[in-house]
Amino acid sequence: MNGLERFSLNQETIRQWSLPELAEGCAEAGVRRVGLWRAPVRAYGVERAARLMREAGLTVSSLCRGGFLTAADPADRAAALADNRAAVDEAAALGTDTLVLVCGGLPEGSRDLCAARERIADALAELVPYAAERGVRPAIEPLHPMFASDRCVVSTLAQALDLAERFPADRMGVVVDTYHLWWDDTVPRLIERAGASGRIAAFQLADWITPLPEGVLLGRGQLGDGCVDLRGFRERVDAAGYTGPVEAEIFNPALWARDGAEVLAETTERYRRLVA
Amino acid sequence: MNGLERFSLNQETIRQWSLPELAEGCAEAGVRRVGLWRAPVRAYGVERAARLMREAGLTVSSLCRGGFLTAADPADRAAALADNRAAVDEAAALGTDTLVLVCGGLPEGSRDLCAARERIADALAELVPYAAERGVRPAIEPLHPMFASDRCVVSTLAQALDLAERFPADRMGVVVDTYHLWWDDTVPRLIERAGASGRIAAFQLADWITPLPEGVLLGRGQLGDGCVDLRGFRERVDAAGYTGPVEAEIFNPALWARDGAEVLAETTERYRRLVA
Repeated sequence: MNGLERFSLNQETIRQWSLPELAEGCAEAGVRRVGLWRAPVRAYGVERAARLMREAGLTVSSLCRGGFLTAADPADRAAALADNRAAVDEAAALGTDTLVLVCGGLPEGSRDLCAARERIADALAELVPYAAERGVRPAIEPLHPMFASDRCVVSTLAQALDLAERFPADRMGVVVDTYHLWWDDTVPRLIERAGASGRIAAFQLADWITPLPEGVLLGRGQLGDGCVDLRGFRERVDAAGYTGPVEAEIFNPALWARDGAEVLAETTERYRRLVA
Repeated sequence: MNGLERFSLNQETIRQWSLPELAEGCAEAGVRRVGLWRAPVRAYGVERAARLMREAGLTVSSLCRGGFLTAADPADRAAALADNRAAVDEAAALGTDTLVLVCGGLPEGSRDLCAARERIADALAELVPYAAERGVRPAIEPLHPMFASDRCVVSTLAQALDLAERFPADRMGVVVDTYHLWWDDTVPRLIERAGASGRIAAFQLADWITPLPEGVLLGRGQLGDGCVDLRGFRERVDAAGYTGPVEAEIFNPALWARDGAEVLAETTERYRRLVA
């Protein structure tokens, strides 16, 4: 027992590490779980990455990401679905049942968020049976409203649950990410709702810091550097019945510029002190 | 009738204009209403600015801004209240009954959004009678959740209404700003709620464009350049019973770098075509 039994390191937190460095660094730090991203896994080879993680004693807690299912154009929609089926296959090969979905923004020229969310639901109706057959449960991640136009028209946990609940709970989950949801005062009761139906597929951590950088994607804070009540979030998610991994996913160039082992040591120390 | 009867130009949209240039430019363009900001008004002289607007035939639709009422420190809180009383006096002098409130972010080191909102309510209980005696109705503006930590812990129209409804409707309103609220699928019914009780004190327009700039404050889009359904918003606000000014408030350095009259012509053309 090192206090890191539930801790998972999302690889983008230390993106300066190759997959072998990630496997070795986690093993040395006593970290047993990792969240992986498709691009580096595919570049390394999916089966090869799966073997690397297995041999290092690492469990893959989630694969990021499928999604981008808002296209109105039929060819774009078909391409997105094909890509999502590939993502399901990769998740299955890596031995994780959780495929994180970033659902996509508004198509060029569109102003209709509701219609975009309906197209997501339509696409999921095709994707979910395929995933279920392979033991993979896609999980909708609501992204902060500042991403509503260009990345994800699903901005709240309420919207994510409204979409997910169109499917059986064992086939479609949601992601609770502190960075995206911390500002929302309705989140406590939505976490209860998500937990009651067993929908919480992943719980991810990052802190909120300002000023936001240009493009706002890479402005996440190390745990404890910002204003999110991380422990309160973890306690709520646990109280809702979630017992799964707690994954640190921090996109921040300042962390990427440092020694990976040092960043991991800092992150696990913050996790033990501020979250667990 | 030039189609601009309800249109108001918030002066920050053309901040390159001095107050005399604003008065002259609006008169030439057939614009009859302006939204003003405290800093330029104070620099010019409050009474002098009021006279300038009056003599140009301009009505002041709103004064931005009071607020920043989240301080926990007693001295900071007292200073904020004194500043808000001054803002009320300035609004009264300018002849507008609408003082826009940007309520403030989290104090340094705090992670408690709920407590911050309660401190706002406590401060408003002191401010509101003072304002009512002077014919001024403060109006809470919910700001986009990306400003929750550093500018405004009131992120949704629901939260703004929850705060405002602690006071009589003729003493405390809310601001509906398309830029801050466009992503929220619960806004249509919240606009109904706000309208039913006569709480809509101001309706402001800006479009949502990406990528957001560093700091995210100055990334608002010219009407029609982004993905907000501006006409849909205006129709909803009208259907809720609002008959007041429709104020273009666009913070964008690209607009500030251009000829002011050209920007105003473009803005009024967009307003007529896309909003009215």
